[in-house]
Amino acid sequence: MTKETYCLLENFMLCCMEDAAHDKEHIYRVLYHALDIAKTENHVNYDVLIAACLLHDIGRKEQFENPALCHAMIGSEKAYQFLLEHKFEKHYADQVKQCIQTHRYRKNNPPLSLEAKILFDADKLDVAGAIGIARTLLYKGIVSEPLYSLLPNGSVSSGEDDVVPSFFQEYKNKLENSYSNFYTEKATKIANERQHIAIEFYNHLYQEVNWSYQNGRNELDKIVR
Amino acid sequence: MTKETYCLLENFMLCCMEDAAHDKEHIYRVLYHALDIAKTENHVNYDVLIAACLLHDIGRKEQFENPALCHAMIGSEKAYQFLLEHKFEKHYADQVKQCIQTHRYRKNNPPLSLEAKILFDADKLDVAGAIGIARTLLYKGIVSEPLYSLLPNGSVSSGEDDVVPSFFQEYKNKLENSYSNFYTEKATKIANERQHIAIEFYNHLYQEVNWSYQNGRNELDKIVR
Repeated sequence: MTKETYCLLENFMLCCMEDAAHDKEHIYRVLYHALDIAKTENHVNYDVLIAACLLHDIGRKEQFENPALCHAMIGSEKAYQFLLEHKFEKHYADQVKQCIQTHRYRKNNPPLSLEAKILFDADKLDVAGAIGIARTLLYKGIVSEPLYSLLPNGSVSSGEDDVVPSFFQEYKNKLENSYSNFYTEKATKIANERQHIAIEFYNHLYQEVNWSYQNGRNELDKIVR
Repeated sequence: MTKETYCLLENFMLCCMEDAAHDKEHIYRVLYHALDIAKTENHVNYDVLIAACLLHDIGRKEQFENPALCHAMIGSEKAYQFLLEHKFEKHYADQVKQCIQTHRYRKNNPPLSLEAKILFDADKLDVAGAIGIARTLLYKGIVSEPLYSLLPNGSVSSGEDDVVPSFFQEYKNKLENSYSNFYTEKATKIANERQHIAIEFYNHLYQEVNWSYQNGRNELDKIVR
């Protein structure tokens, strides 16, 4: 890829980014992860991969404003139109579009090309380990959701069976399960290396708050009558 | 303290709470910490301590709307007026006011009474360990600040010498130094037990993102020309 093309795509991405948890630094991390994964794969089309990484979240703003929209669908179409407008070949624009379209869900719309699989894995790595915890907490702050919910008996819920959104609910129902189902060996390896810090952080946080509530409520019951 | 008084104070607190990182769950954690610390101290006035814990952050909203205001000063005055209006004795209202006034800074306005010292310590425990990390990240999300800043050479700053606000800047300049200067032995012990998870989380997060940038930027330089 030429520097000129890279700058064109980067600038378009920067214009599209707004919400902080999916900010531009996430894009660079995904790009850098993808390049790291690509080193261990053969016949990677770097022109497709770099464009797909840079543009994979350009539909985030639309989804943030209207949660019924899917940023992968919106973003892939925006990227496709942008590339055609800038005289890139239709086949190339199509390849980039396919990658972006399939970076979100595995089941109904799985990534098919090697570049799409690398983008998928690179994006999921940013949900693993300490960075996954940090990004989720930032996002909970943005959308004003709490760290945890309380059970009807007043103790802290682990998040596992929660319906109400919270950090614990997201950890137990999403983050905790994000360490398998990668497509590439390299991403699987990195995710496994990162898993223990996320588990340890959640466990500590749960212990800290749970102990505090259990102990404190007992004490309070003795004093307030 | 009677249940009636507790409910009166709790309801007033709930009416005053708005910003999520200092939400009502923080208040309960501080209260529960304080009761835990109080068990190891002699001659604690629980009426003063519980009221001060429940009401210590009721000036947060005013400070959030106008950062020039100090929530400890605003909150102590609000609590004092509330207690007088509800026919509590002036001496009691004064004791609660003093606790709230001195819960924020150690240097210029240190806590003097035992209850003020316990509130100070209980509040600072909520900045230690995993809960300190989690609350700081939530808050960075609320005020739209990033996880880290980049140095002029494009690598990730550790946060140590940063002027621009970020999670790393806050960790290096505030959280990292929050494990000493407690007034009570109990709080010192709890903070020390919690310190390692905060250090480990920061170190992991820094390693994850720093390695990703260093490695990724090298790869990109080879491909984009």
